[in-house]
Amino acid sequence: MQNPKKIAVVGSGLVGTLLAIYLKKRGHTVHVYDRSPDIRKINFTGRSINLVLSDRGVKALRDVGLDEEVLGIGIPVEKRAIHTGVDTVNEQFYGKDGEVIYSLSRGLLNRKMVDLAEKAGVEFFFEEKVWDVDLTTATISIGESERGEWKTRDYDLTFGADGAFSRIRHKMQRQSMFNYSQEFLNIGYKELNIPANADGTHKLDKNSLHIWPRGNFMLMALANLDGSFTCTLFMPHDGENSFESLKTKEQLVDFFANHFPDTEAVIPNLVEDFFKNPTSYLVTMKCFPWTFSDKVALIGDACHAIVPFYGHGMNAGFEDITVLEQMMEQYGDDWANLLNDYENSRKPNADAIAELSYRNFLEMSSKTADANFLLQKKIEKWFSDKHPELWVPLYSRVTFSHQPYAEALAIGDRQNEIMQEVLKMENIVENWNSEKVENKILELLKA
Amino acid sequence: MQNPKKIAVVGSGLVGTLLAIYLKKRGHTVHVYDRSPDIRKINFTGRSINLVLSDRGVKALRDVGLDEEVLGIGIPVEKRAIHTGVDTVNEQFYGKDGEVIYSLSRGLLNRKMVDLAEKAGVEFFFEEKVWDVDLTTATISIGESERGEWKTRDYDLTFGADGAFSRIRHKMQRQSMFNYSQEFLNIGYKELNIPANADGTHKLDKNSLHIWPRGNFMLMALANLDGSFTCTLFMPHDGENSFESLKTKEQLVDFFANHFPDTEAVIPNLVEDFFKNPTSYLVTMKCFPWTFSDKVALIGDACHAIVPFYGHGMNAGFEDITVLEQMMEQYGDDWANLLNDYENSRKPNADAIAELSYRNFLEMSSKTADANFLLQKKIEKWFSDKHPELWVPLYSRVTFSHQPYAEALAIGDRQNEIMQEVLKMENIVENWNSEKVENKILELLKA
Repeated sequence: MQNPKKIAVVGSGLVGTLLAIYLKKRGHTVHVYDRSPDIRKINFTGRSINLVLSDRGVKALRDVGLDEEVLGIGIPVEKRAIHTGVDTVNEQFYGKDGEVIYSLSRGLLNRKMVDLAEKAGVEFFFEEKVWDVDLTTATISIGESERGEWKTRDYDLTFGADGAFSRIRHKMQRQSMFNYSQEFLNIGYKELNIPANADGTHKLDKNSLHIWPRGNFMLMALANLDGSFTCTLFMPHDGENSFESLKTKEQLVDFFANHFPDTEAVIPNLVEDFFKNPTSYLVTMKCFPWTFSDKVALIGDACHAIVPFYGHGMNAGFEDITVLEQMMEQYGDDWANLLNDYENSRKPNADAIAELSYRNFLEMSSKTADANFLLQKKIEKWFSDKHPELWVPLYSRVTFSHQPYAEALAIGDRQNEIMQEVLKMENIVENWNSEKVENKILELLKA
Repeated sequence: MQNPKKIAVVGSGLVGTLLAIYLKKRGHTVHVYDRSPDIRKINFTGRSINLVLSDRGVKALRDVGLDEEVLGIGIPVEKRAIHTGVDTVNEQFYGKDGEVIYSLSRGLLNRKMVDLAEKAGVEFFFEEKVWDVDLTTATISIGESERGEWKTRDYDLTFGADGAFSRIRHKMQRQSMFNYSQEFLNIGYKELNIPANADGTHKLDKNSLHIWPRGNFMLMALANLDGSFTCTLFMPHDGENSFESLKTKEQLVDFFANHFPDTEAVIPNLVEDFFKNPTSYLVTMKCFPWTFSDKVALIGDACHAIVPFYGHGMNAGFEDITVLEQMMEQYGDDWANLLNDYENSRKPNADAIAELSYRNFLEMSSKTADANFLLQKKIEKWFSDKHPELWVPLYSRVTFSHQPYAEALAIGDRQNEIMQEVLKMENIVENWNSEKVENKILELLKA
């Protein structure tokens, strides 16, 4: 057991609340601060890509007995449904039989997590703005405005779970030797909506992640519990086929009729939603170190914000907690070494999922419609079925295993090199499932 | 001519003062703000690697008639003097006959630049701390402390020339789509001193940049006007042979006796200076965009802070001004497009000199003592002398030309590939200046 500490968690998002539950279960006093009102008391709308929960996230929930409650509000998603043209849909299963990811509403999930944390004995302080943290004492400063009066609250340890624009990290960033980068994609996103049928059923297959891949832009749809789908349009901010280029109702309607003709029947409020909903930005944020002695630590998006194309933002944040829990088990009260080991073991994996997520935009928006890529996936699946012990596809390593992300990335790169060799073989389109191909892969795997 | 504007320049360093002179010459009202006291009224000591001024910097000074005054306080440096062992010194000339760089004291130069700017009609506001800038109006906010009372001053345009930890950039950083990175090297530095002889002469050759390359650490010395040398010890912060490993007087004296035995006679105050002077950090900072409409622009270290190993920090900052001047000539009063073209044309070159500077630590600390590298340099020089129109060495492109840094880097990489091929030739050590080698290079250049 650890000696009980008084711990502040800044941020009542998904990672902050789950972290609070873990800390509370270890006997600590846990106070969670958030600058926003209690999410259970407000209407949540708008900004937020639907969440995808996969094995890493499920494990973190299961270890504190919360997986069933959370999965109860999720919709299993077993495949990609690729809308290549009008009425042409290709299906790509994510894993083997029964392997699924879960579509979740961020708002619903967050409400549930706050409930569960309160039930576990965590105290919440909403509409309390944390502006500063003293890195040597973990004391936080709270006030109405950045330049107004502040009061202080003393803690033994403060966690920054306050997201990509973390105020706690902002303070750490002023130290020497603090590495930091924020890089915006030129791709933005906007939410649209596919409402439920009159009888409450879904207009599209609810167990698919729907993609309309169109090169440098794409539309995506994920099912909600109420029969609706949240759609997300990913597109460059400027240039050809960009948010900037869609200024009028006519331009918008033409654009959708040209590129997404099969959505006309299912997105009735296109024009209203498009011009009402904000265009949001996508950023990759990296930093190091994540901790300061035994006093302050960052977790989740606050230390590794990633783009959403692998669906791993929450999963990576929840896995931070799994790793932290292992460290608490291992180091007990030696918090300085505990946090040091946490950041060092976790950082390469955070960098790896950032890279994988960045690359996946290309895969989703272009490659899913590319014959060569589809052939590659087909060969991989065929070989993997024959030799499951020799070939686990990258997506499965990332999504259906707990292998460290950095290892998954390295093996995935090696597999891709092998497949590039295989795709160069003569008549590969016809002979893709021949013994020759099988032997070639076996030989390359040994090299 | 441009219509006169009221312009604020934040930062009275080298780039801020030279920029102010350029703006003043164009008829603008120019106010320079600095949080520090007037550098002409204080003793400057300690932190600051000696400056190196080369052709890009000289050009920016010459274009406003200031080159002779500045070169008058500089010492020409024509070569590297590589101290490989006791009394063993290899010399590497930087360029062709007469091509030199200049060693300058940052403090002396900065005082002179402020004098020159005042003479040109620039107004200075020292000990005025700028905390904020309104990006849409260029209005700056000034006050005693970050959280104290602020007063505002209105301008038409505000330049941030406030260095690597720029407050103006800090404000821009809060926008969406602002890319930013700061990356610290694990190499730190500390200043030491070689005093003048009793008669005021230099203890070492004053026209050399002295290097004691020792793998992952090195000592460097640059001459000052008063007969002394400023020495800089570059070394990892921690690990073997690090600042952290030198905690006691005995450890320090042993370390210098082992690695720099020939410095004992010339650095009398080693122990006192080492423990008195701070260990400083080295950071590479990149960002984009550099400007906000026609209201706010960054320049110099504020938008591209680099490590000092190519001696180009000030030169790159001064070249920013040369480019800005070309844009003022070209665009006149169209400041929005003027600043847009400035940032777009300058950014790739800022990235290139950052990369070159980062790489040069390896060259200075290890490669200058490496037989293969010395052979490469010898072949390059020999070929370049024979075919000056076909081969300008990278160092000369960067230091003795005004070719954009990005082009110099790209050509340098190509040249290095060629030389790696050449070094693989049979008996290259004996035949380095043979016709065969000459033909090989000529052939590779055509490829």
